[in-house]
Amino acid sequence: MEKPVVRVGVIGAGNVGSALVQLLNDPARHEALVDAATGQLELVGVAVRDPTKGRPGLPSGLLTDATALVNRDDLDILVELAGGIEPTRSFVESALRRGVSVVTANKALVAESGTALAQLAHQHGADFFYEAAVGGGVPILRALRTSLAGERINRVLGIVNGTTNFILSKMTSEGSDYADVLAEAQALGFAEADPSADVEGFDAAAKVQILSSLAFGTELKGEQISREGITGVRDVDVEFARRAGFVIKLLGVAERVGESGVSRRVHPAMIPDEHPLASVHGAMNAVFVEGVASGPLMWLGQGAGGEPTATAVLGDVLDAARNRVSGRHDVPFTVDSTLRSVSAGDLSTAFYISIDVLDRPGVLASVASIFGRHGVSIQSMEQSGFADEARLSFLTHLAMTSDVEATVAELGRLEAVDRVGACIRVLDGGAK
Amino acid sequence: MEKPVVRVGVIGAGNVGSALVQLLNDPARHEALVDAATGQLELVGVAVRDPTKGRPGLPSGLLTDATALVNRDDLDILVELAGGIEPTRSFVESALRRGVSVVTANKALVAESGTALAQLAHQHGADFFYEAAVGGGVPILRALRTSLAGERINRVLGIVNGTTNFILSKMTSEGSDYADVLAEAQALGFAEADPSADVEGFDAAAKVQILSSLAFGTELKGEQISREGITGVRDVDVEFARRAGFVIKLLGVAERVGESGVSRRVHPAMIPDEHPLASVHGAMNAVFVEGVASGPLMWLGQGAGGEPTATAVLGDVLDAARNRVSGRHDVPFTVDSTLRSVSAGDLSTAFYISIDVLDRPGVLASVASIFGRHGVSIQSMEQSGFADEARLSFLTHLAMTSDVEATVAELGRLEAVDRVGACIRVLDGGAK
Repeated sequence: MEKPVVRVGVIGAGNVGSALVQLLNDPARHEALVDAATGQLELVGVAVRDPTKGRPGLPSGLLTDATALVNRDDLDILVELAGGIEPTRSFVESALRRGVSVVTANKALVAESGTALAQLAHQHGADFFYEAAVGGGVPILRALRTSLAGERINRVLGIVNGTTNFILSKMTSEGSDYADVLAEAQALGFAEADPSADVEGFDAAAKVQILSSLAFGTELKGEQISREGITGVRDVDVEFARRAGFVIKLLGVAERVGESGVSRRVHPAMIPDEHPLASVHGAMNAVFVEGVASGPLMWLGQGAGGEPTATAVLGDVLDAARNRVSGRHDVPFTVDSTLRSVSAGDLSTAFYISIDVLDRPGVLASVASIFGRHGVSIQSMEQSGFADEARLSFLTHLAMTSDVEATVAELGRLEAVDRVGACIRVLDGGAK
Repeated sequence: MEKPVVRVGVIGAGNVGSALVQLLNDPARHEALVDAATGQLELVGVAVRDPTKGRPGLPSGLLTDATALVNRDDLDILVELAGGIEPTRSFVESALRRGVSVVTANKALVAESGTALAQLAHQHGADFFYEAAVGGGVPILRALRTSLAGERINRVLGIVNGTTNFILSKMTSEGSDYADVLAEAQALGFAEADPSADVEGFDAAAKVQILSSLAFGTELKGEQISREGITGVRDVDVEFARRAGFVIKLLGVAERVGESGVSRRVHPAMIPDEHPLASVHGAMNAVFVEGVASGPLMWLGQGAGGEPTATAVLGDVLDAARNRVSGRHDVPFTVDSTLRSVSAGDLSTAFYISIDVLDRPGVLASVASIFGRHGVSIQSMEQSGFADEARLSFLTHLAMTSDVEATVAELGRLEAVDRVGACIRVLDGGAK
């Protein structure tokens, strides 16, 4: 039987785009792709900024511009790898309105407009897939959409930013300082010249919103969620964590709170050494899912890179092609409009707090009385250094985050306190 | 719009069956199930050996016998949780022939007859899904079928038997002896009274065959594959591994060899501490996949238990229901008839070999000359104990497995050798 042809166009020929073109043209994969797509994938065009400039590995006949590509009458699947919000969103909308399925790796676009784009796709009988937007090559989103569609999820914990995990892993293994490791990561190309999207947690926050939408049904419409980066994490904090049996990771968290609440947040956290997330090193990404019936599940893999990310895109292309051939499309995630967002301040957590103090009599008493006044109970305390370089490190029992924030604010106003160095959550109070 | 009804029948009301019924009837999941199934799932019957005996949690009106259930005219999906080969296979075949989709957790049946059953399903427009047959609640098979359908996989490494991983983890953490930990596992219900299916690697071998069929296209037709269990692993081996920076795990391996070869095997292996599989503890299962473009990927979760396994079954039921509603079915895995099975003896691996010897002059020379005669080069040697209790522990460089086997056979015939205690492969030669 003649296999139907499924026409694929790609916007963007960067790392991911060119890796995808290679995968699509790899003779060793040809049969597997036809089997999986239930059709012949035909790459009809690759849109680049300047189609007159040749690209190595790309037949010049394929090069085109995005407007021409999106307006082709025969396009079945548009792969969007250009990034950014505009004009990308317009291209995506225009394709979806014409019933063309869209596959994207654009986390910012999905977090900003995912609900509307998924609904637009559904209205026009098309798919809108974005596996590569979270965790690079780690196929977590399809698992949430399909394998776990009937599971009731309590919490999703993600190490979803490779740059910050690389930095924190280096700080842990080498005892190095944040600034030195950041500079090294920049030199190696693991961090951007302006690293703020990574180190301030913006990238992870977009990914948390996407994970949360599939795990709980929260909307994707450009909300801001609670976000703390890793710029305040010092070598002394990493060393304290190590001695106490923890590693510090930047976690993206989406968590059910009570029956109808969801907390979404990004922050550094102390993870017990025994936790599977603790052994996720370097630029690897991992997503840890806690389901009511499934118990803990974890996905681990390369969070970035052209080839790994292209495999996630390819998985989506094959899924969209199968759907196209059988004349159906996947139903988008269901928005649960009864959900309310729970603010991070309303959650109860244990904290590690480190304070630089002047080492003189009575300081600990003043500090402890501030903790007590805010109802934050101390589990353990350690003093290190002396004189002007003294440091008090506390692990608290479970406490309301807002109470801890008030404690920290008041500590910062105490004359004997130079500064509050760290205020880092301890995952599950350190329970092992 | 009225949602179509999808009728589900279940054979077997053990741990997994009763957990599945609870998930299907859980009011908190109702909406999510309807959304994911794109229809109303209706549980029409649960087949048990004696339908006249009541079961807690199961409405007596649902109880029936398997023949009556399979012969219902209105059945859409049959869930087979009875286990065993016959009469189970007959029920499954009978359902598939009538176009009823089948979901099973029966690894033995799939390894024995999976190719034929998948083709039978395809001929009759039905699905044949078996996610729960490998890794309990870990959704690895759907990922191989969909997300990685276009990826070229080099190797799959699985810790896919919870009982043996529990035993080896206890031996590692407590330094205990195999026999003691086995007895403890039996007392705790982690191991059967007759543990051979687990400790001799039969269970893992069936799972390797299933993973290999999806990763490489090898057939599922009851072949025997190379298999070594953990009964020969001693506390001294675990301790040697620990000091050398390894943990011993029972690995199921499916590996591409050259262009058209596949090796499938089960054996204990020394895993470097830094490898993600090394931190898979207790009864957890994990599958580690190495793809050409994706790089390393790992899935981790509960390998057994009624509820986790039921979530995997439920994922399949939802997938089959969606397909039923849209009038399509998934294409079964493609058999690659050009593949040849590579025997374990033809592979090159590093080994850990431990020999109990009589401590007297010249023994090491005799032993070393036997290694040399077979072309097995020694990377390091350690002697422990003395007199009648002396033990020589070797790590070899890469060597042909058949040469190592010949070495071990000849060592066993040496007068000064009491016995060869261990001959355990070192993953990737210990490369970190």
